Amino acid sequence: MSWQERLRIVLVQPRNPLNIGAAARAMLNFGFSNLWLVDPYEKAFREARSAAGAAEVLRQAQVRPRLPEALGDASLVVGTSAMRGRAEDHVQRLLAAGALPLRTHLADRTAALLFGSEKFGLSNDHLSHCDWILTIPTEEGCPSMNLGQAVALCCYELTRHSRTVPGLKTPASIGADERDRITQMLVPMLEAGGFILPENRDAQLRKLRRWVSRLRLAPKDARMFQGMLRQIQWKLDNP
Amino acid sequence: MSWQERLRIVLVQPRNPLNIGAAARAMLNFGFSNLWLVDPYEKAFREARSAAGAAEVLRQAQVRPRLPEALGDASLVVGTSAMRGRAEDHVQRLLAAGALPLRTHLADRTAALLFGSEKFGLSNDHLSHCDWILTIPTEEGCPSMNLGQAVALCCYELTRHSRTVPGLKTPASIGADERDRITQMLVPMLEAGGFILPENRDAQLRKLRRWVSRLRLAPKDARMFQGMLRQIQWKLDNP
Repeated sequence: MSWQERLRIVLVQPRNPLNIGAAARAMLNFGFSNLWLVDPYEKAFREARSAAGAAEVLRQAQVRPRLPEALGDASLVVGTSAMRGRAEDHVQRLLAAGALPLRTHLADRTAALLFGSEKFGLSNDHLSHCDWILTIPTEEGCPSMNLGQAVALCCYELTRHSRTVPGLKTPASIGADERDRITQMLVPMLEAGGFILPENRDAQLRKLRRWVSRLRLAPKDARMFQGMLRQIQWKLDNP
Repeated sequence: MSWQERLRIVLVQPRNPLNIGAAARAMLNFGFSNLWLVDPYEKAFREARSAAGAAEVLRQAQVRPRLPEALGDASLVVGTSAMRGRAEDHVQRLLAAGALPLRTHLADRTAALLFGSEKFGLSNDHLSHCDWILTIPTEEGCPSMNLGQAVALCCYELTRHSRTVPGLKTPASIGADERDRITQMLVPMLEAGGFILPENRDAQLRKLRRWVSRLRLAPKDARMFQGMLRQIQWKLDNP
């Protein structure tokens, strides 16, 4: 498996078949092939897929209804966003600076790079799945980029660094699927405890998800955490 | 005038309105606005221009029937090409390496960056106007890029270098218009001398144009050259 294959490029709710096709072609231009689509506008995806020049990458693209299911075991989740100052508790890196640690991560681990819909970009909910935010440094007067071009720029910048930087290596951490499992284990006990209430459920879930991400749990520590949570849940169910 | 305005982005014979629009938008994303079109497919340009989101840059774009007329006084002409090994007597630079001297040139001089048509790229004739070739390092199996994405990558890479490198400065040299004048002065005398024959005219013209480019004439030297050529031509006309 090449390092390029270890990167899932995830288009969240793309709406335009031409953009989906352009993204796929740009991936091919730079050796990427692992394309995932979350809840695409169905007609758009059908059209893109059946286009004359549609590449293999488009035919093999995976479709999932919701974002978490498209993240799989990615142990680093990076969201792209042009939004300034919206990132709150997220680390935000400019493309040139962010491509280096992402490329380094891909040397031996999997990652996901998320692109939002043409119209709205990534929502706060989508961003809550991300470890950090990658921003393409555009003009203030015209910050929002075409989806296909944004994918092209990221793929270009990633391959621009021919070598990884060993000194930048981040410690091994669990994948998005494991993080999601931990989040899901926490939800019922936090609902029981009143931390999550029906009226603030969405916001608290995002907060929780971010919190689990920031732990950057090593596999061993994640197993231990899950063990503890199971015990607590048992105690809650059997008072 | 900002350094971005000193760069003419020249699309040669673009055929697809969406690509023209995408190129204009990418320019805006990175602060460029000086767009020229050579012999565009007229319907495509009309459509692109009248599109709802068509930016100011597209409305102010200049159209010319032939390439030399779109180069103006650009004292550096760079052609983009994915072609490997076609460059023969051209210096070919990869995007990351080539953006630096181009950016440095733009600090106080004008330049033109050429993009060929979606289908054929730049022809040998177009390339003969260029000082050197800029190549985006794509995969061998899929080297050809979408036009809008290629423009986006070049604009991104140029702004990626926030500072110029003074040590890289090339000496002042004349613009494309001056070079063309010298080429045109040489043609009749070379035709008279048998260097240019009807059967090899196109090839020899390209060769000649390249030769004039490679001289990288300083303004003073160009004036002197033209003076000499006028003398020679007078002698030819009055044997």
